[in-house]
Amino acid sequence: MKKILLIGATGAIGQAVAKNLGARHQVISAGRSSGDHRVDLTQDDSVAALLETVGKVDAIVSATGNLHFGPLTEMTAEQFNVGLQDKLLGQVRLALRGQHYLNDGGSITLTAGVLSIEPIRAGANATAVNAALEAFAAAAAIELPRGIRINTISPTLLTESVPTYGPYFPGFETVSAERAALAYQRSVEGPQTGRTYRVM
Amino acid sequence: MKKILLIGATGAIGQAVAKNLGARHQVISAGRSSGDHRVDLTQDDSVAALLETVGKVDAIVSATGNLHFGPLTEMTAEQFNVGLQDKLLGQVRLALRGQHYLNDGGSITLTAGVLSIEPIRAGANATAVNAALEAFAAAAAIELPRGIRINTISPTLLTESVPTYGPYFPGFETVSAERAALAYQRSVEGPQTGRTYRVM
Repeated sequence: MKKILLIGATGAIGQAVAKNLGARHQVISAGRSSGDHRVDLTQDDSVAALLETVGKVDAIVSATGNLHFGPLTEMTAEQFNVGLQDKLLGQVRLALRGQHYLNDGGSITLTAGVLSIEPIRAGANATAVNAALEAFAAAAAIELPRGIRINTISPTLLTESVPTYGPYFPGFETVSAERAALAYQRSVEGPQTGRTYRVM
Repeated sequence: MKKILLIGATGAIGQAVAKNLGARHQVISAGRSSGDHRVDLTQDDSVAALLETVGKVDAIVSATGNLHFGPLTEMTAEQFNVGLQDKLLGQVRLALRGQHYLNDGGSITLTAGVLSIEPIRAGANATAVNAALEAFAAAAAIELPRGIRINTISPTLLTESVPTYGPYFPGFETVSAERAALAYQRSVEGPQTGRTYRVM
């Protein structure tokens, strides 16, 4: 049984991940407005406080992060920076600080998304951020000590999200959050590192 | 003959690009501390002023941007943000604002780098930033109107940079800046969009 810190446990993916991993492990949840602990990944002090409170863990899993969606022809640098500061740097911050709280052989699992390789209209920020996360994991994996691993999960549109986001993804096949959660299990319980697990 | 705005014309790549494109086109250079105009891509006002001063162009080319290099085990989110704000958001800002100053059929060419797909030690920030730039161009290309194109150039270590950066790239083959400049020519004068031209 592993001690796992899960950020974003109340989203569609987070709930499914909590259910999957919770069946075999101790899952400690944290989120902006719910979970066992409060945390804002865009704030250094908040992430530092969370990690100090929770202490050493075997796995850190993130299923959270905001992006900017909007037409490229109207997009500003300030809007583009939303995704950089939130979904990208927020998760990178968690990984950079979290590495020091992982037991030997522990793992970090971050969430990217299908837009990294399949752009949609109004999605330039998401494409850049998700690609950066996948690349970050590949680079970080070669430097992490003590057998610590890092991977990203890149799911396509969730079936559960079709009512909200479906129109942005014309013709995309969807996956259930339950199926996407299997990739998080692979990352946490499997042997690989530097991987992007695509769930499509 | 095209009217081309070139940012970063004094770097190793920029010089070679200026020489290549300058043989057939009008090249207007801009940089932090040299060139026909001063510009700081991290500042909205600076980019806006440059574009107003130069006016409509046929191509915008960027060969500039700072990154953070350092061991992952000591890296902070603040350090990681250097590359996000400078090389990544700086060039994205140039593209987002610059699109409105391009003539029909114009082009944007940004600079990424080989670390996007070939991580090195101490290079996690560079890998993430370069991958994000390549992905951004692929996504932006599908939304740009009026036949405007966008590509990234991703050169490996320059032969000219071996004295400075060689030790970080053990066993990497290098390319001359002159050869890398050909990829910029392809992007500016060729028909493709959403491409990453890898020079390796």
